[in-house]
Parts: sequence; structure tokens; C-alpha cells
Amino acid sequence: MKHPLICAAAAALLATPAVQAQAPKPPLDAAATDPARLGWMVGSPPPADKLIRWADMSFFRFPQYRWTFAHFRRLLPTTNISRGDGPVAVLPRAERSDIDGVTFHPLGSTETMTWAQSLQANYTDAIVVLHRGRIVYERYFGVMNPSQPHIAMSVTKSYFGTLAAMLVAEGKLDPDALVTRYIPEMKDTAYGDATVREVMDMTIGVKYSEDYADPKAEIWDHVRAGGVFPRPPGYSGPQSFQQFLLTLRKEGEHGQAFAYKTVNADVLGWLIERASGEPVGRLLDERIWSKLGAEHDAYMIVDSTGYEFAGGGFNATLRDMARFGEMMRLEGRYNGRQIVPKAVVDEIRRGGSRALFAKAGFSTLPGWSYHDMWWVSHDEDGVYAARGIYGQTLYIDPKADMVIARFASYPQAANAHLDPTTLPAFRALAKFLMR
Amino acid sequence: MKHPLICAAAAALLATPAVQAQAPKPPLDAAATDPARLGWMVGSPPPADKLIRWADMSFFRFPQYRWTFAHFRRLLPTTNISRGDGPVAVLPRAERSDIDGVTFHPLGSTETMTWAQSLQANYTDAIVVLHRGRIVYERYFGVMNPSQPHIAMSVTKSYFGTLAAMLVAEGKLDPDALVTRYIPEMKDTAYGDATVREVMDMTIGVKYSEDYADPKAEIWDHVRAGGVFPRPPGYSGPQSFQQFLLTLRKEGEHGQAFAYKTVNADVLGWLIERASGEPVGRLLDERIWSKLGAEHDAYMIVDSTGYEFAGGGFNATLRDMARFGEMMRLEGRYNGRQIVPKAVVDEIRRGGSRALFAKAGFSTLPGWSYHDMWWVSHDEDGVYAARGIYGQTLYIDPKADMVIARFASYPQAANAHLDPTTLPAFRALAKFLMR
Repeated sequence: MKHPLICAAAAALLATPAVQAQAPKPPLDAAATDPARLGWMVGSPPPADKLIRWADMSFFRFPQYRWTFAHFRRLLPTTNISRGDGPVAVLPRAERSDIDGVTFHPLGSTETMTWAQSLQANYTDAIVVLHRGRIVYERYFGVMNPSQPHIAMSVTKSYFGTLAAMLVAEGKLDPDALVTRYIPEMKDTAYGDATVREVMDMTIGVKYSEDYADPKAEIWDHVRAGGVFPRPPGYSGPQSFQQFLLTLRKEGEHGQAFAYKTVNADVLGWLIERASGEPVGRLLDERIWSKLGAEHDAYMIVDSTGYEFAGGGFNATLRDMARFGEMMRLEGRYNGRQIVPKAVVDEIRRGGSRALFAKAGFSTLPGWSYHDMWWVSHDEDGVYAARGIYGQTLYIDPKADMVIARFASYPQAANAHLDPTTLPAFRALAKFLMR
Repeated sequence: MKHPLICAAAAALLATPAVQAQAPKPPLDAAATDPARLGWMVGSPPPADKLIRWADMSFFRFPQYRWTFAHFRRLLPTTNISRGDGPVAVLPRAERSDIDGVTFHPLGSTETMTWAQSLQANYTDAIVVLHRGRIVYERYFGVMNPSQPHIAMSVTKSYFGTLAAMLVAEGKLDPDALVTRYIPEMKDTAYGDATVREVMDMTIGVKYSEDYADPKAEIWDHVRAGGVFPRPPGYSGPQSFQQFLLTLRKEGEHGQAFAYKTVNADVLGWLIERASGEPVGRLLDERIWSKLGAEHDAYMIVDSTGYEFAGGGFNATLRDMARFGEMMRLEGRYNGRQIVPKAVVDEIRRGGSRALFAKAGFSTLPGWSYHDMWWVSHDEDGVYAARGIYGQTLYIDPKADMVIARFASYPQAANAHLDPTTLPAFRALAKFLMR
């Protein structure tokens, strides 16, 4: 189904002659790009026009990636994050049929959209809403189902930000120390004079563009080094994530502004490994995942040296991601045990500098900050969130006792495209549930 | 620890001047190549001399592969084989300390070896013995532990042979039909005039060498096509397992002799997919793995088109592999349900033609046959087994109520090297347990 608001917006845009000349064709809508309906990778072998391969980059094209995001493991090497041997932490069900009709105004619009419409507008792959720990809403689309992992993209960063904050609380990682205390090899890089705290809050001055619309942005060199993207013939660049990190050069000053750059999460992963003596995946497994009462194992994408992609390589099922969010909402105590210390959750919720954040110009996130790899709203509900490109999110509203986990595969990477039909929807649902 | 028998044999060999000149240095023993002790892939990043990579083939060198065999998922794309949501099928423990002292004569030797010595001689990674369904012996070495999957190599074939036999029993796959009834694309290949039964029993006349000691053998082209081995620069050969299968040409006649060739298992995988309409991994998941009460998910290596490597790509934990064996020993009934029909197990145990098998010259397996991708001894105990290179095995002795699952990483591929210190050990243990 085409979404009327999107169509209206597109029509308005296309009415402008200058835009008519340049604007790309609007992408097909969610229903038209449903990956199950399109039959990707079905058949033995799949016909050529239904084949998705890594080496030819078809895996990362729209709408193919609506299949890929649920199947990264079939394309890349991975490590297992074990659910452990304990029982599943039951999420009681109290589903409400009235949620689909909740209405809101998309950011910058006076039109009204329903919750149900927002799922299509956001190219949602799967979404679950917990209220007071109970599942009040749960939907799967396309190739997703309750036992199918999906990539979390940069939601990954918040998992490792939490682990890093735990190591800080234990005195194993000093936020005021220079990065080089743990990784002397980074002496001559952009991180040579940076502190751990500046990495954790992403106020690093480093020449590295995360502009997903720019094919020359360093983010692509980064994922090629890690082998997440294929390399061109004759490639002679860095052979691993860590080798890539050693090539980074300074640009500007540290501590002056929030600048969202995935490399910081990978530097943080390295810091965690040096401070804990363990691979980040195993630490996540031991400290969190095996304690959550997760339903399923999760997994991490690894590079060719076995280094786990802390910047965006975590994959899990929807409900298990929601369990992590519920654990955070409950101040670290979940499944009958304190998994993350309350002081660590408090510190994350305290947030970072709103002034430094404002300099980054995230127009859909006024008044927010970034701290310990979490996005913190500083609103009256105390909302904070993990956010990944193409619409992945884990959204925690402590006042409304609400946790939302969502996987999506939007036609554009940046969440600025989805926020207008996401953040007001989530806020309207919180109000609705609090009534 | 160096094994005295191996040392004696090596010393005797080296005493011969002609051998002194040519013989390669005997490989280091099991203790000296223990992958945990050698510290492969430890460190962030691992030091260069501890790094194991796929692209440079170090992953498949001895002794590095003693680490690799437990970590294929970190090197290659895989699919998940789910354990499902049910409870684990408990394996009661009744461990016996007297098994280590069981003695036997290695094939062709009058010396005496103990069970404990055989584990080292065979470069065992993990071994478990079930007697009447109880664990009487269980050991893990190197980087293995009860929750660590290990590659099953060609033990994989027996899983899919069993699935194929189930489809035959259901009338979905006709053993007397030509392969081309299901895969018309194979018309102009070696399989153009072959029957399904000839594939299942490996009596196919096809130009394809499985001599692991010959770097030009077609087995290597096969795994390069599937992307299990890296391809040389400028590679322009087949891009998938299925494309490779279409290149196979006839050599000799079908139905005249047993000829062990991995391609047959991959053709069988394709037949299964066409007959069932499902990917082989999903079928294994739905029909068997999710019903076994397995402790862990398993996984399959896939090629770049998502085709699962039915010839040798299955990875599972040791006890779960033993559960599959126990299910077969119990004539298909396990974990409170009939998983494989009794008639299918009976048919597998019946075996194939011993005359055709004898032509293949497996000197350590006199009187055996190969049927439905299982190795059948026709001995007084009715032993039958799944066997994979480098020592992987699932060994079922119905008369002794004994199942042995073993993972190993022997310095040479062919099981002829391990059989002398394996088959008499297993037989001695069966006698010991029956006393």
C-alpha cells in the first residue's frame, strides 16, 4: 500500500520544476518492496533476478537489503553470542488492539497519521512494544519472524557503550585516561591525544565522514577494511578493522563537539578488549546476553582477523533486543538478577553535553545528547534510545514504563528520514499507554 | 605427550636410509599441536604468528586447523540449524573411570595400546561414548568444550542421506528415477544417465578425484567454486556449488563400483531440495534437529548463493551429534517421538553392495558397504557409521548399545590413517561395555 502522506509530500516536491529536473524517482513503498513477496533467494538455485550476493554488492542495494538485514550470517563470517543454558525470561502478553489507531502528527506536518500507517511509512521489518514488561503490541513483516535475527546496525554501539560503562564502574577502564594508555599503537593516530571519555561520547576530532549518501565517505573504507563490504580488485588498503583504525588522522579538536562517527565505537571495542582481556563478543555473552533469559543466540559480524564489528555488527531477534531494553528500563535488574549495575544505568540516563550535541545539527533531535554510546532525549519522560541506520532502534521511556524495539529497512540510511514518522508516533503511544 | 607407539613407528621408519632421505618430518604430536596451548587467535589483535586467516589459506594448514575446525563460522558464511524451543533431551551420566585402561591392538600391529593413548594418537578434539543412552565417557581437548560446535566434515553426508531416505520412504524421491527427473539441468553432465540410487550409494562414474594429497584433485575445484576455499586472482571458474556440479563429466560407468566422491552428496542435496521444495538446512532443522532435544543450534557452511554444503558443511556440538546417533541406535525413536521412521533406519543398516564397495580398495574396511551415505560394517554387531575426513565420526554399535561421537583434527585427511588406532579401539570398548 502506498502511504498517502508520503505521496502527498512527494507530489508537493515534484510540483516544483527545479526538483522535477533533479529528484530521483521516489523509492517503492514498503508493500511493493516486501522481501518475502519479492521472493529473494528462493529456489534451488534462486533465479538470477532473485539472487542476492555479497561480492557484487547486490546485498546492500535497496530493496534487496530488506532481505539481507535478516540474513547477514549467510553472507559474512560471524561469532555466536550465546543465550546460555537458563530458562527463557517470559514476556507476558497483554496485546491491545487499539494501538493501531493511535494518531500523531509527523514532525513538521499538520496531517494526521495512525500508528499502523507509520509502520509502513518506516519500512518496518519487526516491532514490539513492552508496557510494564508485558507485550502490548508485536508485528513481523517480510522475511522476519520471532526467531529470525536482524541486524541492529548502530544499536550495537549502545550494547558496547553499556559494557564500557560497566568496566568504568569497576575501575577497569579509566574514562579520563588517554586512549593510548590501553592502545599504545594509536599514538600517531587521531586518537593519540584523545581520552576514553571523548571516545565514549563521540567528541573526537577525526577525519572520517559518516555521510552515507557520499560514496567517498570514509565509512565505506572502514567497512571494506573489515571485509563487511567487498574490496575492489588489487585492493591494498587495511586488512582489518584495527588496521583501519590505525590510519585515522586528526581533524579539528577533541571535546569540542559531538560528531557521530562509527570508528569511535570500534576504538571503544578495542579499549574494552584491552581493559577486560576478552573479545567484545565474549564479554557481551558473559556479562549480558547469557543472563537476559534471551530466547535465542545472537551473533556478531567479524572481520578477517576475528575482530567483532562493535560499530554495527550485532544481530539478534526482536524480543531479545526488547529484553535488553527492559533490563535497562528496570535499572539493570532483570530475569531475577542485577545484570548491569544501577549506577551504570543512571550514568547513561544522565546523558552528555547538550551544548556539544547541538553543534552536530541533528534537526530531529533538539535538546538531546549522546553519552556512553546512547542517545539521551532529556525530555520529561527521560527517554533514551539506541539508534541504528535504516531505522533500527531500542527506545526506552521510563516514565511511561514503555520499551519499543524496532527493526526496519528504510530506503535511506539516516534516521533523520524516519524520525518524522517515528519519534512523534512513539511519544503518542507513550501518552496513550499512560492514560 | 608424545605417543610411544607413534614414536616407535617413526623411529623404525627413519632407521631405513631410503626413507631418511625422502620422508617428510613426522608431524608434531597431539599435545605439541594443542590449539589452546598454541594460542591461535588470542590477542587484540592476535600477533601475526598467531593469526589464522581464510584468504591466505592458513586456516586449512596443520596444525592451525586444529583451531579452525571448531571455528568455521568465524571464517565463512553459514546458516543456522535451530534446536527449536523444546527442552533439552537429558543424557544421563554414568561415567566409568576404567575405560581409559581398555586395551587393543592397532590394525596391523601386535603392540598394545590403551584407549587413553588412542585419543592422543588420533588427535582427538572431543569424544563421547553413550552406553544404553548414558554418557559413560566424555572428553574435550584443545579449544573444544561442550558448547563449542566442530565441523563434522563428511559426517554431514549421512545426515542428508538419512533425509533423502526419508523422502524415498514418503514417495517424494524415487531412487529408481534418473537424476534428471528432478534436475533437468544435469542432462549433459556425468549425472545425465545416473539414477538417484546410484547417487545415494556413490556408484557414479564421474571424473572427480577425492585424493586429498593431490593439490590438483577436483575436490579442491569443488570447494573453491563453493567459496569454502579462497579463489586465485582472476578466477573465472564456477561461482557456486551448483554451477560446479554442472561441469562434471562422466568417467567410467555408473553402478559398477563404489567410488567415494563428495560431489555425489552435493548432487543429493540438490535432489533433496527439488524433491522437498525446501533448502536442505531447513529440512534438517524441521525434520530432525529441532526434534532431537539438542542442546545447541547447529550450522551449515553455505556458498555465495546461499546453497548449503551438503557434502561436508555441518557443524554441531559433540553431545548433539551423539544424540543423533542415539536416535539412530533406537531405530529412529528418541526424545519421546519417532523422528526417523524405523523402516528408514532398517534400510540404512541393511547396507549396500559389499562387492561394489570392495572395488574401491578401502583396506581398513574389509567387508563393509556404503548405503544412503552411511558406512555399514556388516559385522556381528551390526556396526554402521558416519565418517568425515581428519577423524570425524559417529559410530553406532547396536549390539553393544553403544554410540560414539568423535571430532578430531589429524595431520592427514584420509581416515585410513586413523582407522588403525580407532576401529579396534571402538571394538574393544564395545566388548568391554558388553561384559
